[in-house]
Amino acid sequence: MKGNNNILERNNALFNKYEALLKMIQQGENSQFIYSFSCLHPYEKSEFFFLVDEEERLYMYRFLNSEEMAQVLSNAESLKHDMSIVFKEMPSDFAREAILKMSDDDATYVLNLLNNDQKSEIFNSLPEQKTNELKNLMSYHHETAGSIMTTEYISISPTMTAGDALKHIKSCSGKVQTIYVVYVVNNDNELIGVLSLRNIINSDPAQRISDVMNSNVIKIESFIDQEEIAHVMRKYDFLAIPVVDNYNHLIGMITVDDIIDVIDKEANEDYLKMAALDHVSDAEGTVINRATKRLPWLILLTFLGMITATILSSFEDTLAKVSLLAAFIPIISGMSGNTGTQSLAVSVRGISTGEMKKKNKFKHALKESTSGLITGSICGFILFLVIVIIYNQPLLGLIVAISLTIAMTVGTTIGSLIPFFMTKIGIDPAVASGPFITTINDIVSMLVYFSLATTFISSLT
Amino acid sequence: MKGNNNILERNNALFNKYEALLKMIQQGENSQFIYSFSCLHPYEKSEFFFLVDEEERLYMYRFLNSEEMAQVLSNAESLKHDMSIVFKEMPSDFAREAILKMSDDDATYVLNLLNNDQKSEIFNSLPEQKTNELKNLMSYHHETAGSIMTTEYISISPTMTAGDALKHIKSCSGKVQTIYVVYVVNNDNELIGVLSLRNIINSDPAQRISDVMNSNVIKIESFIDQEEIAHVMRKYDFLAIPVVDNYNHLIGMITVDDIIDVIDKEANEDYLKMAALDHVSDAEGTVINRATKRLPWLILLTFLGMITATILSSFEDTLAKVSLLAAFIPIISGMSGNTGTQSLAVSVRGISTGEMKKKNKFKHALKESTSGLITGSICGFILFLVIVIIYNQPLLGLIVAISLTIAMTVGTTIGSLIPFFMTKIGIDPAVASGPFITTINDIVSMLVYFSLATTFISSLT
Repeated sequence: MKGNNNILERNNALFNKYEALLKMIQQGENSQFIYSFSCLHPYEKSEFFFLVDEEERLYMYRFLNSEEMAQVLSNAESLKHDMSIVFKEMPSDFAREAILKMSDDDATYVLNLLNNDQKSEIFNSLPEQKTNELKNLMSYHHETAGSIMTTEYISISPTMTAGDALKHIKSCSGKVQTIYVVYVVNNDNELIGVLSLRNIINSDPAQRISDVMNSNVIKIESFIDQEEIAHVMRKYDFLAIPVVDNYNHLIGMITVDDIIDVIDKEANEDYLKMAALDHVSDAEGTVINRATKRLPWLILLTFLGMITATILSSFEDTLAKVSLLAAFIPIISGMSGNTGTQSLAVSVRGISTGEMKKKNKFKHALKESTSGLITGSICGFILFLVIVIIYNQPLLGLIVAISLTIAMTVGTTIGSLIPFFMTKIGIDPAVASGPFITTINDIVSMLVYFSLATTFISSLT
Repeated sequence: MKGNNNILERNNALFNKYEALLKMIQQGENSQFIYSFSCLHPYEKSEFFFLVDEEERLYMYRFLNSEEMAQVLSNAESLKHDMSIVFKEMPSDFAREAILKMSDDDATYVLNLLNNDQKSEIFNSLPEQKTNELKNLMSYHHETAGSIMTTEYISISPTMTAGDALKHIKSCSGKVQTIYVVYVVNNDNELIGVLSLRNIINSDPAQRISDVMNSNVIKIESFIDQEEIAHVMRKYDFLAIPVVDNYNHLIGMITVDDIIDVIDKEANEDYLKMAALDHVSDAEGTVINRATKRLPWLILLTFLGMITATILSSFEDTLAKVSLLAAFIPIISGMSGNTGTQSLAVSVRGISTGEMKKKNKFKHALKESTSGLITGSICGFILFLVIVIIYNQPLLGLIVAISLTIAMTVGTTIGSLIPFFMTKIGIDPAVASGPFITTINDIVSMLVYFSLATTFISSLT
């Protein structure tokens, strides 16, 4: 994130355009509005639509064509807006037309944001075949290939010539999401090859598709998790990837723009989970929304924190004798928490991006704990010097330094291993996040610190 | 991150393929190796190449063509490998040929990983024009549009017909990264329009480009930060975006596959920075590497932690009288740290993804602190009940509960505002991460807790 005047300028220019459009609506300059709006990029149409109020949107329903409304709704995914409100205000004919003109992955996305009554109203108004297609797509599990794929792709037969294929692509051009990748299927709709438009253009028009296609197709089954798809597409630099059922029948395709959204969303999720937040749209939540979503976690952590409190209270005698011990509680628990979180972050991202393999986990944990031991000894030594200088208490300094070293070594070990353990028992490791590690490390580090202190208490007092 | 048998199967199949290839090398089955290797996807060629040892790589330099070596090296970005070692073993003719056959953004990336001697050796062996092109690209600032763009794009003239344009695209097809987006420039090389191959295919071959092109081009200046480019490309669902200089001259293009790498990398950076780690490749670092990179941060945090320790030691009298107070230090500082980190995460990602505008910052902070007040009161009340039940000390419970509420309210406020402040003074807000917020919150919460405790000490003892 760096500030950038140029981008600000662009944004300002865009917002000036939006303001001009708003004025046209308010002053009823209909034809001028229709022209200016049509010149916007689909994303900008969407952004403008969701920025204005209901009154302006009502105006737009009268003056936009359903093609434009389809563009507006197709960007709902990046813009986040309460779709059920929009569909309540929108004339139902218009909603129907717009849904028909959207690509079916976008339509599925929007329909999933509506309430049940709205969904069935739209399904009733659509042609039966379209309804079945969309319902079928909506039946796939959330965040799997099936749920983000589109069924609007181009498939060709291996017996076609390259010239025929090009003609076919032209004729499909208006109905599909991308024409740049086409799939070759046999008579049973089994996926047997892939070709890019570039391959076809470069081929002799008389050549057979079966001779020029790539039959080593990398494909995805419908139940595969979207994060896995993102890995594959990122590795292979694909513009699209085909989706097949269990019998290798081609059932859909996923395009790169949808995968960019996935990568962004998954990274956001990992990031927010590390802070024990479980929702991406938190930045837009109301107060009650934010509070209720975080509360279960925080209450859980309160109870976990009571474990540390109970341990500490069992050392009340030690504390009563040397109350200065309490002054170093936050630093020891904090540092073991910090290093633990660092190790955790490296493991979680390593697993998420696929860089870290399970077989390396112990090697990785060993590296982390050694690094904890080294950094712990150095920070411990510094702390020892500071305590000797400020409080003139070398033994206290030694106890604090040794505790810090052990706490940081244990912290890094736990932090690096927990994510693998979580993956093993089937829990998303990003959830085993900062605060959890901190609690475990708190307990361990306080036990070490006060056991040491209690042992040497006679020399301390 | 979910486990997935299907993906594991695919990976196993791939690794079996790699093992078979390795065997072919070891048994000298040259022609079989050459054929099998050529059937791999470019990414797989790369993965195999970087998986094997020097001995096998030396074999490959003899049997692969430079086209294949270019594919291998082009994927260096996702695979991370010490390029200077590879270039040391590689015959210099072969290295030269491979660099010539790579797209220039990938070549720039690889050259930047070499040491200075290797760089100049390669530059000396390349044709002068190529050297100048690459040096020019390498002169752009790291992580800007200029540094990740390619200069191998297709530009056409507005006076061409669609049919001419299609012919021109076919003739360029072997030399450019993508043929799916072409840019229209005037005689001065100023960018005046954009067209997709789809537009061209759908146009009447006799139509003029100036009549069918989109003249509302969204473009990027060469100095724009890559994270900003990712925002724009994500919003608009582009396959490529043109790069211009200050005078609107077309100088390059950035393709979607490079942007996917950027999104992934930036998300990783944000994530690791939150844990006070500043490098993406930490997952591969040696022990010394990990320790030395983290040490400066940890030493800084040790000194920051001493501030809390000093504050606490100034309350030594209070602690000596009621040593049970110490038992609740970790829970109060921990909870204010946790909520602060949550608020921080929401703000940092909100700023990073562009969802959160500066003008909303106070509204956002108000929401966060109110949410902190609500969750703090509830957790505080629970803690109060637990302390009354376990320790039968209602006044202590009240002090802890009030301190927790204040600490969590302050924690959320600070956590939500700090990232905006950091952005304002030009520091990456992701760096103002967890541990920092935790230290500030520690100081505030301990001051509140012990001030309250000292005030009511007479009733407590």
